[in-house]
Amino acid sequence: MTDVAVAGGGLIGLAVAWRAARRGLSVTVVDDAPGTGASAAAAGMLAPVTEAGYREEPLLRLGLDSLARWPAFAAELEAAAGTPVGLRTVGTLVAGFDEDDVRELGALHAFQRELGLAAHRLTPREARRREPALSTRVRGGLLVEGDHSVDGRAVHAALLAAAQAAGVVLVGDRVVEVVADGGGAGGLRLASGDVVAADATVLALGARSGGLPGVPPLPVRPVKGQILRLAGAAGLLEGTVRALVRGRHVYLVPHGDRLVVGATSEDRGFDPRVTAGGVHDLLHDAIDVVPEVSELELTETLARWRPGTPDNAPLLGPSSLPGLVLATGHHRNGVLLTPVTAEATAELLAGGTLPEVAVPFGADRFESEPMGRTQWS
Amino acid sequence: MTDVAVAGGGLIGLAVAWRAARRGLSVTVVDDAPGTGASAAAAGMLAPVTEAGYREEPLLRLGLDSLARWPAFAAELEAAAGTPVGLRTVGTLVAGFDEDDVRELGALHAFQRELGLAAHRLTPREARRREPALSTRVRGGLLVEGDHSVDGRAVHAALLAAAQAAGVVLVGDRVVEVVADGGGAGGLRLASGDVVAADATVLALGARSGGLPGVPPLPVRPVKGQILRLAGAAGLLEGTVRALVRGRHVYLVPHGDRLVVGATSEDRGFDPRVTAGGVHDLLHDAIDVVPEVSELELTETLARWRPGTPDNAPLLGPSSLPGLVLATGHHRNGVLLTPVTAEATAELLAGGTLPEVAVPFGADRFESEPMGRTQWS
Repeated sequence: MTDVAVAGGGLIGLAVAWRAARRGLSVTVVDDAPGTGASAAAAGMLAPVTEAGYREEPLLRLGLDSLARWPAFAAELEAAAGTPVGLRTVGTLVAGFDEDDVRELGALHAFQRELGLAAHRLTPREARRREPALSTRVRGGLLVEGDHSVDGRAVHAALLAAAQAAGVVLVGDRVVEVVADGGGAGGLRLASGDVVAADATVLALGARSGGLPGVPPLPVRPVKGQILRLAGAAGLLEGTVRALVRGRHVYLVPHGDRLVVGATSEDRGFDPRVTAGGVHDLLHDAIDVVPEVSELELTETLARWRPGTPDNAPLLGPSSLPGLVLATGHHRNGVLLTPVTAEATAELLAGGTLPEVAVPFGADRFESEPMGRTQWS
Repeated sequence: MTDVAVAGGGLIGLAVAWRAARRGLSVTVVDDAPGTGASAAAAGMLAPVTEAGYREEPLLRLGLDSLARWPAFAAELEAAAGTPVGLRTVGTLVAGFDEDDVRELGALHAFQRELGLAAHRLTPREARRREPALSTRVRGGLLVEGDHSVDGRAVHAALLAAAQAAGVVLVGDRVVEVVADGGGAGGLRLASGDVVAADATVLALGARSGGLPGVPPLPVRPVKGQILRLAGAAGLLEGTVRALVRGRHVYLVPHGDRLVVGATSEDRGFDPRVTAGGVHDLLHDAIDVVPEVSELELTETLARWRPGTPDNAPLLGPSSLPGLVLATGHHRNGVLLTPVTAEATAELLAGGTLPEVAVPFGADRFESEPMGRTQWS
């Protein structure tokens, strides 16, 4: 019997486990391939401002809260694991290439000023002074100083080490069911047939959270993303560059010698295929924005599934099944929301109360309405 | 002591070894990774007509000779190996997308008629009747009935089996030197220090043939090619499709469920990188020609080096070093020229005379002129 059983050893599951263990709880994480799902694909942007839609203010507030936690979270994690997580706080440049883009940058800037966030409009020359590799076709830019980045894979590796150092038990098996225990959740059943019995069970299975036997229906669907990794990019970019290219958003996130280019967003269920069209579009748009990308080595192509929800915000806190705690549905914001998710969930598990910041994100927000329509969408 | 030592276990080296063994010679092939060089990348086009430039008539004649040998070679190889090699004899469609392309198709057609080769001009509608997946933007086509294809990797696998069944000894080590033996070649020195002593030594190291210690200077240089493999293409194309897209040649070669899309041609030495620009251009052009390619799965990207020569034709027959026989420099035509190279080289090794068809391709054709200028270039 353990205090907490966590289904899923991606960024969210491991971070929850680590923080819960640091609060003195005994924790077991079950995953047959930790960190090979969406966590392996994530570019590592910490970008609540450039990522949030204008009508997603509750999510934006959650993102800003989590962003503010990142420096201390990263420092504590690096100290616990003894390995770096690659936090970069140089800001993000959003580039526009035609009149529509530049108009959108203006609207984004106005929205940011309303919220009191630091952002500056840049002329094309200023944009290229900041990022000399940018295409000469750039027509305007916006420097969002508060949008940062982290190396998602390095964070996952550090969380694995830190969680184990804090006493978390990692079981390398597949979760097949949340087991019932007197009307509530009593732990996890594994593919081997073993059961990890627990007082509290945390669901952190990402896009696969919705379909697990024993779990009440959840509005989580897979949103396929294809993403590329390139090598030879040392010195190419100062920080993250985002752009709109003929209606398609593309981002380029530098991590030392590597550059992550993403991402498609496709409604194709659990289609695992890296497609010719997906890779073409990403390469095309990245080369359009930063022509020298053409010369980089293409080292990896990957397709994974974001855990999408009707309002693009996560599912946090208690579920309708007593004993089952949700930490899923993070859609495009899993890396960004890792600290707030881990700390709020650990507070619920150890202290019994979900912190105020996470309260708007209960699964019950969807219950009174047909799935897909909410107050925010 | 063996009759023949072959440096290189790609398509050419193995085919030479197999045919020589079938002529009663004892043969040892040395390669630390057989079939992982240019043989692994080759699309498998048997296309002397669409591949040859107009001023490369000697090469075209060699290609047509080898093409004529392919059906019997394939049948004998399949019987010896017990595995298929995927010979497809449905012809090749060359598609044109603008006025310049269509003019070029006319010139190609006239040249083929001069040579007495079967080829037909197609209207856009006829081209799309032959290949319904072709873009509606096609402006004209040429059906080259004599240009076929084979599955290069299946050929290599079959050659491995057939050669070993015929008694060829395969040594899994790297060749480091052609050893001298009284003013001539006496076999191969391996990375282990061992020597394979032989009466005759065959050089079939592809792009690496030029730099091997103990070998006289040869005008072989690496011509980098990047190539893609896609899956999910069953039924998409009737046969090979070639096209010129804004000055870039692209080909799409179907092998059952798979589609090979190639290839870049780059003068970058032994640069092993698959680049963002190379993959982008291939995907872009393939999708431009056959839009449904966009939906296929991208399963493999590869960069290898063709063994280029100043006149794009191979180096065959005796070299200036007694006992050293050349079977290299096949540039873009390695798969096509495998039968004629193997059979002519085996005849030289077993019968003492190089057949007439191969005589124009001795390395001595470059000796009286500065490297890079020849009667054909």
